Amino acid sequence: MCRWLAYSGGALPLNELIYNTQHSLVEQSLDARISTQTTNGDGFGVGWYDHCEFPGLYKETRPAWNDANLEDLCVHTRSPMFLAHIRAATGTAIQRTNSHPFRYGRWLFCHNGLIHGFSTLRRELAVRLSPDLFLHMTGTTDSELMFLLALNYGLQDDVYTGLARMAGAVEELGRANGVEQPLQMTLGVTDGERIYAVRYSSIGKSRSLYHSRSLSAVRDLIPPERRGLLDAFGEEAVTVVSEPLDDLPELWEEVPEATFLTVEKGGVTRREFAPEPP
Amino acid sequence: MCRWLAYSGGALPLNELIYNTQHSLVEQSLDARISTQTTNGDGFGVGWYDHCEFPGLYKETRPAWNDANLEDLCVHTRSPMFLAHIRAATGTAIQRTNSHPFRYGRWLFCHNGLIHGFSTLRRELAVRLSPDLFLHMTGTTDSELMFLLALNYGLQDDVYTGLARMAGAVEELGRANGVEQPLQMTLGVTDGERIYAVRYSSIGKSRSLYHSRSLSAVRDLIPPERRGLLDAFGEEAVTVVSEPLDDLPELWEEVPEATFLTVEKGGVTRREFAPEPP
Amino acid sequence: MCRWLAYSGGALPLNELIYNTQHSLVEQSLDARISTQTTNGDGFGVGWYDHCEFPGLYKETRPAWNDANLEDLCVHTRSPMFLAHIRAATGTAIQRTNSHPFRYGRWLFCHNGLIHGFSTLRRELAVRLSPDLFLHMTGTTDSELMFLLALNYGLQDDVYTGLARMAGAVEELGRANGVEQPLQMTLGVTDGERIYAVRYSSIGKSRSLYHSRSLSAVRDLIPPERRGLLDAFGEEAVTVVSEPLDDLPELWEEVPEATFLTVEKGGVTRREFAPEPP
Amino acid sequence: MCRWLAYSGGALPLNELIYNTQHSLVEQSLDARISTQTTNGDGFGVGWYDHCEFPGLYKETRPAWNDANLEDLCVHTRSPMFLAHIRAATGTAIQRTNSHPFRYGRWLFCHNGLIHGFSTLRRELAVRLSPDLFLHMTGTTDSELMFLLALNYGLQDDVYTGLARMAGAVEELGRANGVEQPLQMTLGVTDGERIYAVRYSSIGKSRSLYHSRSLSAVRDLIPPERRGLLDAFGEEAVTVVSEPLDDLPELWEEVPEATFLTVEKGGVTRREFAPEPP
Repeated sequence: MCRWLAYSGGALPLNELIYNTQHSLVEQSLDARISTQTTNGDGFGVGWYDHCEFPGLYKETRPAWNDANLEDLCVHTRSPMFLAHIRAATGTAIQRTNSHPFRYGRWLFCHNGLIHGFSTLRRELAVRLSPDLFLHMTGTTDSELMFLLALNYGLQDDVYTGLARMAGAVEELGRANGVEQPLQMTLGVTDGERIYAVRYSSIGKSRSLYHSRSLSAVRDLIPPERRGLLDAFGEEAVTVVSEPLDDLPELWEEVPEATFLTVEKGGVTRREFAPEPP
Repeated sequence: MCRWLAYSGGALPLNELIYNTQHSLVEQSLDARISTQTTNGDGFGVGWYDHCEFPGLYKETRPAWNDANLEDLCVHTRSPMFLAHIRAATGTAIQRTNSHPFRYGRWLFCHNGLIHGFSTLRRELAVRLSPDLFLHMTGTTDSELMFLLALNYGLQDDVYTGLARMAGAVEELGRANGVEQPLQMTLGVTDGERIYAVRYSSIGKSRSLYHSRSLSAVRDLIPPERRGLLDAFGEEAVTVVSEPLDDLPELWEEVPEATFLTVEKGGVTRREFAPEPP
Repeated sequence: MCRWLAYSGGALPLNELIYNTQHSLVEQSLDARISTQTTNGDGFGVGWYDHCEFPGLYKETRPAWNDANLEDLCVHTRSPMFLAHIRAATGTAIQRTNSHPFRYGRWLFCHNGLIHGFSTLRRELAVRLSPDLFLHMTGTTDSELMFLLALNYGLQDDVYTGLARMAGAVEELGRANGVEQPLQMTLGVTDGERIYAVRYSSIGKSRSLYHSRSLSAVRDLIPPERRGLLDAFGEEAVTVVSEPLDDLPELWEEVPEATFLTVEKGGVTRREFAPEPP
Repeated sequence: MCRWLAYSGGALPLNELIYNTQHSLVEQSLDARISTQTTNGDGFGVGWYDHCEFPGLYKETRPAWNDANLEDLCVHTRSPMFLAHIRAATGTAIQRTNSHPFRYGRWLFCHNGLIHGFSTLRRELAVRLSPDLFLHMTGTTDSELMFLLALNYGLQDDVYTGLARMAGAVEELGRANGVEQPLQMTLGVTDGERIYAVRYSSIGKSRSLYHSRSLSAVRDLIPPERRGLLDAFGEEAVTVVSEPLDDLPELWEEVPEATFLTVEKGGVTRREFAPEPP
């Protein structure tokens, strides 16, 4: 449906990952390889952290591949943590407020997948939001609603629990409305300190998700001419991606089904992910 | 906040009213005269009826004054009934789904004004919608929500009642939340057969609204060189507008405060408008 | 590079060919089959003839597949002749003025292909334009310049000659600048009465081009459930397309290399196309 | 016609001048005070210098006042030199390539004003460009052509001469074509080291232009609560603006007619500006 990437490490110009890799995110917008759709041209967004209190956001409705502003922004912006997303819409409008990532305070959130039966479930999911979070709903996607629900269920205090209860709410409500396998998702969540990611689906066949192996570990495996870029990443650099950014399989590790990932200071920890009662 | 016009009469090229009048709607987008804001550049929309089952819609986020597509559409489209709106946003995103008019089946709806305290009231208003109408909410404006609430309260069966109960719901909920005078509106509603319009505000000082006097009645009052256009309108032509389209005051009649207007086959009937319990 | 279609026949709602066929132009914007690029998402345009003196134009920068306005326009507009184009850019900006078709008076023009070495040749080609035609250049594509050159060389008086001299100018200038095979094109040109089309390239391997066989001839060949649509086309309906609109090969005839096509009142005539000295 | 500002000094978040001043550039987009047009809503652009070889650019077609991306970019970007422009079009298309500033290598250029009779002069001016500069023409404004002409006449070697010869070419060509007073302009030009600005018109009544007085000089004149911002500017900060950014006239000095300004390291030097033979 969509493709995304998250980066954490030494401050890096955004274009190194978004444009310059062998199979970059911008290239994926035109020609994704292991996606259910090869074209992800229904808008895009990038959020980044810097010296400011809140992360910056640039979101557009046009395809990433033909946006000159995006290229300039990515060349001129260096960040130790950023989250970028290219969209293939599943029925909702092409507008900036439906482009990912979504922002709430320090938090950024993006999603690949969908809620099956969302037309049936939308109101029931939305009414579970507090008035403040309901007001914060600026678009109409299932993805934004998933983020707001996770916030509603405590994401800011405990990311795992917030996401697990959100998933639980979607599945509970879906099944109550005759949708047996309502949830299909990979999620990327950042707070400026850590990347959290989830690969999960009710049916147990989730969209693809990978993360880079520890750079220090893979350094010797890769061709010398590419090491410079790795060095630039810093020793603690990790990327989490919908699909690998190049043709070097030894650089990428597939995230297993039903997994919750935490990336912090170059370390990647995994935990099984299971929905919880909302 | 915004400006709009509705037309009913003989099939007319849209550009005659949207571009060619002395003080046209497109000119108002750049320089409205009796609006609270002179610039209405936050998107626009036009809906028109023809041989098709449902009205056509063209909505954009750019200012009406610089949209070449709008000009071509208006030159090439003839319609016996159309509704056009230029937007000055009051806090919600500039996106097509927030441009007026809004469409539901055969119905079109546009609004000038706002719900005061909408940030407090949004969730409470939205949860009153049926799941089907909630799903139909594609944008995030107070205006669209007013339309969906009116549909929820029976607008399709009885326009007056649907709108009066919507207004009642907004005022009741507003006052319960400490907003004494929550509603400010002029509304334009069409179903392909009739134009309905309302001028109302909780505070009793509503945005401006006018309608053309019966063309056959005013024919002799106006300069000969403009009569050709009037003839083209047909004998039953009526326009309802936020502000007059020219400097001929004898052509325009101000709609009084708290009034519900029905335009049908060239006739304009008035009725007092008062909110009703939802 | 791009895909296009032209229609001439009984007045038809534009959406029948642009949206509703098995392999419609909108589907080709996301997934073209026999194009050098599968995605044609860098804007689009449609021009149509009606009761007005000049054809109408709707051009946008977003992909055709996600433009709600285009869908409404195509449902609500009926025309006996229209020309639609989806763009895959070859280096020039994504802006409405670079979307095809281009308009000059009653004439519309669209192009699939490119001028090789255009960066070298642009100024030399442009200075051949008369001041009036130079001023009419509102975008920066090789395609628009080809149209203006053809106008410069007399297209309005004799379409074949205008296009042949334009092609001659491009090849002459290209070769003088070391570009041996500068021209690659299929062209669609309309004046409201006839469709003219060309398939030509300096290298002799041109982009694909097809036209429908005479409808009366193919009527019995196709499934009964699709005949209604054919009937709607009228007996004189012809479509010229970059690639077939369905999987019925018997409906489509490939246009040979180096061919100039004229479609008039349902008849298709062919003539060899060869560049002429400018 | 348009409004612009240039800043040179200590690295400053762009939003301090573009959004946060009493009468900021974004406010001027909706409500300019001493412009020939109060609304400057036909697109905008900002260029900024940083650690990269070339300046960054963000240009859009929507009004500056309603672009959420611009606000984020300005909050998150700090620069010691930037140039921002809001556009009121004078007949050419609303597209990113027609938004200012224009970029060529390290150089940025913006313009307020117009070439009278541009429709007559466009081709003659354009053919004076070298093929390389002609190719670099990505839009269709008189402004971009003025920049390319100045480059053609040596702006990179000697800014004054390049601009004076450009002005000479426009006036010479204008008068040869019956346009007595063809040029109306204020110009902002930057190379990352200096701001150059010109106020000039053939008729001797040019668009307004101001620059801030030396900050160290005005420090004691202004209210204590605003000094913090001035301190942030650094001792060498200078802004050049189409109209003052606040209601403190003692902060701003009007640039006289026919003046060429150079801003370098906080110092402002003036020189009379007179067109030269091209």
